[in-house]
Amino acid sequence: MARAHWGCCPWLVLLCACAWGHPKPADLGGQDVRNCSTNPPYLPVTVVNTTVSLSALRQQMHTQNLSAYIIPDTDAHMNEYIGQHDERRAWITGFTGSAGTAVVTMKKAAVWTDSRYWTQAERQMDCNWELHKEVGTTPIVTWLLTEIPAGGCVGFDPFLLSIDTWESYNLALQGSNRQLVSITTNLVDLVWGSERPPVPNQPIYALQEAFTGSTWQEKVSGVRSQMQKHQKAPTAVLLSALEETAWLFNLRASDIPYNPFFYSYTLLTDSSIRLFANKSRFSSETLNYLNSSCTGPMCVQIEDYSQVRDSIQAYALGDVRIWIGTSYTMYGIYEVIPKEKLVTDTYSPVMMTKAVKNSKEQALLKASHVRDAVAVIRYLVWLEKNVPKGTVDEFSGAELVDKFRGEEQFSSGPSFETISASGLNAALAHYSPTKELNRKLSSDEMYLLDSGGQYWDGTTDITRTVHWGTPSAFQKEAYTRVLIGNIDLSRLIFPAATSGRMVEAFARRALWDAGLNYGHGTGHGIGNFLCVHEWPVGFQSNNIAMAKGMFTSIEPGYYKDGEFGIRLEDVALVVEAKTKYPGSYLTFEVVSFVPYDRNLIDVSLLSPEHLQYLNRYYQTIREKVGPELQRRQLLEEFKWLQQHTEPLAARAPDTASWASVLVVSTFAILSWSV
Amino acid sequence: MARAHWGCCPWLVLLCACAWGHPKPADLGGQDVRNCSTNPPYLPVTVVNTTVSLSALRQQMHTQNLSAYIIPDTDAHMNEYIGQHDERRAWITGFTGSAGTAVVTMKKAAVWTDSRYWTQAERQMDCNWELHKEVGTTPIVTWLLTEIPAGGCVGFDPFLLSIDTWESYNLALQGSNRQLVSITTNLVDLVWGSERPPVPNQPIYALQEAFTGSTWQEKVSGVRSQMQKHQKAPTAVLLSALEETAWLFNLRASDIPYNPFFYSYTLLTDSSIRLFANKSRFSSETLNYLNSSCTGPMCVQIEDYSQVRDSIQAYALGDVRIWIGTSYTMYGIYEVIPKEKLVTDTYSPVMMTKAVKNSKEQALLKASHVRDAVAVIRYLVWLEKNVPKGTVDEFSGAELVDKFRGEEQFSSGPSFETISASGLNAALAHYSPTKELNRKLSSDEMYLLDSGGQYWDGTTDITRTVHWGTPSAFQKEAYTRVLIGNIDLSRLIFPAATSGRMVEAFARRALWDAGLNYGHGTGHGIGNFLCVHEWPVGFQSNNIAMAKGMFTSIEPGYYKDGEFGIRLEDVALVVEAKTKYPGSYLTFEVVSFVPYDRNLIDVSLLSPEHLQYLNRYYQTIREKVGPELQRRQLLEEFKWLQQHTEPLAARAPDTASWASVLVVSTFAILSWSV
Repeated sequence: MARAHWGCCPWLVLLCACAWGHPKPADLGGQDVRNCSTNPPYLPVTVVNTTVSLSALRQQMHTQNLSAYIIPDTDAHMNEYIGQHDERRAWITGFTGSAGTAVVTMKKAAVWTDSRYWTQAERQMDCNWELHKEVGTTPIVTWLLTEIPAGGCVGFDPFLLSIDTWESYNLALQGSNRQLVSITTNLVDLVWGSERPPVPNQPIYALQEAFTGSTWQEKVSGVRSQMQKHQKAPTAVLLSALEETAWLFNLRASDIPYNPFFYSYTLLTDSSIRLFANKSRFSSETLNYLNSSCTGPMCVQIEDYSQVRDSIQAYALGDVRIWIGTSYTMYGIYEVIPKEKLVTDTYSPVMMTKAVKNSKEQALLKASHVRDAVAVIRYLVWLEKNVPKGTVDEFSGAELVDKFRGEEQFSSGPSFETISASGLNAALAHYSPTKELNRKLSSDEMYLLDSGGQYWDGTTDITRTVHWGTPSAFQKEAYTRVLIGNIDLSRLIFPAATSGRMVEAFARRALWDAGLNYGHGTGHGIGNFLCVHEWPVGFQSNNIAMAKGMFTSIEPGYYKDGEFGIRLEDVALVVEAKTKYPGSYLTFEVVSFVPYDRNLIDVSLLSPEHLQYLNRYYQTIREKVGPELQRRQLLEEFKWLQQHTEPLAARAPDTASWASVLVVSTFAILSWSV
Repeated sequence: MARAHWGCCPWLVLLCACAWGHPKPADLGGQDVRNCSTNPPYLPVTVVNTTVSLSALRQQMHTQNLSAYIIPDTDAHMNEYIGQHDERRAWITGFTGSAGTAVVTMKKAAVWTDSRYWTQAERQMDCNWELHKEVGTTPIVTWLLTEIPAGGCVGFDPFLLSIDTWESYNLALQGSNRQLVSITTNLVDLVWGSERPPVPNQPIYALQEAFTGSTWQEKVSGVRSQMQKHQKAPTAVLLSALEETAWLFNLRASDIPYNPFFYSYTLLTDSSIRLFANKSRFSSETLNYLNSSCTGPMCVQIEDYSQVRDSIQAYALGDVRIWIGTSYTMYGIYEVIPKEKLVTDTYSPVMMTKAVKNSKEQALLKASHVRDAVAVIRYLVWLEKNVPKGTVDEFSGAELVDKFRGEEQFSSGPSFETISASGLNAALAHYSPTKELNRKLSSDEMYLLDSGGQYWDGTTDITRTVHWGTPSAFQKEAYTRVLIGNIDLSRLIFPAATSGRMVEAFARRALWDAGLNYGHGTGHGIGNFLCVHEWPVGFQSNNIAMAKGMFTSIEPGYYKDGEFGIRLEDVALVVEAKTKYPGSYLTFEVVSFVPYDRNLIDVSLLSPEHLQYLNRYYQTIREKVGPELQRRQLLEEFKWLQQHTEPLAARAPDTASWASVLVVSTFAILSWSV
């Protein structure tokens, strides 16, 4: 799944703007946006009246003596998907887009968001709110400096600002005679009051051993061993990302959409294990599993989630050094640890360890992809029969593929909101159909499905683009160039410890060659029943170097605004490559097992090496998925699979370079026959 | 020319260490290094006795109340090649390597340098000096903290520390109760006294208009126009890099080895032009050319070089904002400008403008490469005849190619020290032969020549690797893979504003495929009678994005330690690419015109596209260089050129993938003939 969050790093912002732009009105049901310049202003029905809540918020600000209050779009754990009770920015502004920061002063209120959300913001916000079509802290601070008086205080919830974001605000405000004020009680929450959705409270459960790569005791010992080897001899590791605690203890829950996590922190010291979470959510069996009734170095002491800041602060009074990953630690924790007691890395040792899957985790993740392929193939077969009838729409389609996944063994729901997009909708960056707003699937249009599942053994993410009728020559060419990009990166051999950034252009070269490109990243890590976008693995500049045992998606695409969108996404394991001369080299082993659409492949654009790769991949799909389909008596699907994985043969070349292949080869044949 | 300075960015340090290592004793005339653990210590004759000068330096430190004094390897302008009078680190330590920092305390003296120079340092330094096999400010500060007492002062010359380096020392020392002290009088210079070589004083001359892209007046107006458009409205631009002032005024001299520059600064304000240099070095004609007798906005006022700091400080008292490029400004200038009066970018507007050559500059640079090709071809033809006689060595060869270049029109000497390396010497990172120490060229070995010239119209840099006998299959394979890398990057089509970093792996893929690689960067910018390594263009992570009109080298290589080295380097112009679908795309146009060695190309490894590219390139060489050779009656060279640019034809394939090409093509032929 391609997300602008990781897909549109700064150098790609322009590309994003060009390639995807913001949603076209036609696709969002009419450009029914507010007009604040008329008297009275025009407000569409989709607008939320925020006058009362804003007034109440300003009352709270007045009490705290604040000139401004920042309301970020984050939660306390840098989660990609946040719970409803954390959607403070959406609640106070009315604007529900996933990215955007709000700032309220005593007189004004404003939202900063990127081009994906401008129309949506104009449809959802009332005239209390200014819309600023910019992102980053700089424009916000520039605005603040004109809006609040010298000597004014800018309040924020320290659990909603990452260390980096706080530093960025702090630096920009330095010397301005405006002060940042950390307030641990969230002022929006005070106003939200009893209307605020409750914090989830479902049971936290332990994964069966069959689904874990190591026991939690082994993982704890591994992290402690890293602490001992560390030059700065940390006495503790603090884990703030929910996936870190979930991974470490092999525990799961469902507090967050799409991610099987629970609100928690872990303070793993050299002599104790302190897990901050709601104790009532653990069964006695799970407490027993955690060895929680003792206090030794291998006993997990459960402490209340709300106590984490005080507990860290108390721990930091001792002769200790606390190791944190700065990327996932919020300022609210950071500010209570004296600097000389901090040991900082970009990512915690848990994040770094988790990025490399051991052999059991690899096998689990691969197995989940075989079953996932069954669900996707069932859906594709069903579409092939039903789309021509004109009865399928994007939303019902998305529901059906989610249902098919749900019927697979160990299923635990989708790993993100299914992107089911027909025709021009597939060219939109963040399109997901709704029951009310969707497009009918048709044999005359391309259809893009980007979806994934959570299974107890692994998380999946795959994108296929199909056409059931007669695609245009351009559609076939674009599809084939995307496919070549996928193949060229997948089969690349590169030195160990190469960063993904160095090689991602191989996924683009075939598109560039014709003057085409895509405006998102090329891939991201993925977890074992964890995040579908698992950092820090991937092809972005801030991803860590590739290593054997990592999994990443590989997902080039092409988007023709107003017409169609193509993305071909597979998940691949980083494996050792065998090279002619000895050396430490890596390559990818694709573990997604759904064939590409033959109807969209222009074989004449493929080199012999591409064909060879593709046919070998198809053979692998047959070997992995075929028996599973037969075992399940999915005979129609089995037949479909055989048809769609028939080896592809080269067609007559139609390009200049292929003409020269012919000349050269013919020459060679003739000289051999002499 | 591949240099570790730009070639070995952090992620490549390991590669560098593996691929190139430090010079082998056999090649440097025996490992005659010091041994300080015996009594008395063993000191080879190459060692310099530094006892007296160190004692005098400590006397100066005592006077200044310093506990330590830092002696960097830089000059005041971040020059790549520094003048003899700036070789303070070399003079005080005896160690003449181009990279390495010295620090002297009252009791100890130490040098930090990288692996390229460890042996050299042990051969040149006496036992007054510790050798630390590390680089960067962190190990130096770590050492300082144990060596100097709390409260101690660490002195440095602020004109020898860049802003970044100063910040790095400052940050590392923060909170340590040791203070950095900026001392504008260089203490080594005080000790060096009358022995110090004089500062160059040759005439500074204006380039003829035929050799300039624009007049200085046009350039000044261009920079002023950028100042006016700048959001922060700078009132002045300060230029610290010598190439900036040389470029802006179309002035040249020969203060620095290989670079036609003169010691200078420029303060270009909205209403004045102040050039800091030694006025006596300008002829009345040049002063007239600079319009230096007036004080208007288009008059160049010459002020004394030594006055720059005071003048900037005085200017900064006004209501001004001074725009600097932080990469080339030293702390000695930076510290006298109040922070609120600074407008900072990584590179100055002159550096950024200079990076993109206008059409006249492009034509000039191309023309210089045609003549440069004549010199290199003359040398290669001469080698072909003379190497078999056994009379040529690396040093005499280097002298000869320099001589041939010197005979070319507009020649102004070599653009760097010629790398003329036979056999195993070519695998050494920084090998240059000397009269005393060199290797005979032989038909049994490969020979690498990396050389370039300064011409009034342009700067050149080209590397060719040749073999006059029977290369091994591995040598041919490695050479061909390097060639494929060169071709794959040269013919790549990529979106405008792509950073070089994103695409440099295309120069490595063919090597990676077989488990081979090289440990240096892939290319660097180049100037019009300016730097041979012209920042900020290139393929490193800190280079700026590619734009039409830039020139860069493309120079993959392969180095087999103890055996041979291969590098194929061309200079290429960034040009617009015509793509099938409209878009803003770029590609490279190679402007180096010397054919590769046919004897080393394994044609069976080349694809039809590679052959097509290569034959088109050979045709261009014929068209560009052929007439020049004929005009000059260099008929033997002309004949050689014709032979070496004969179109290459495919040979019988010998790899599996080529077998499949054949099958596919034959299939196509058969189906066509039906």
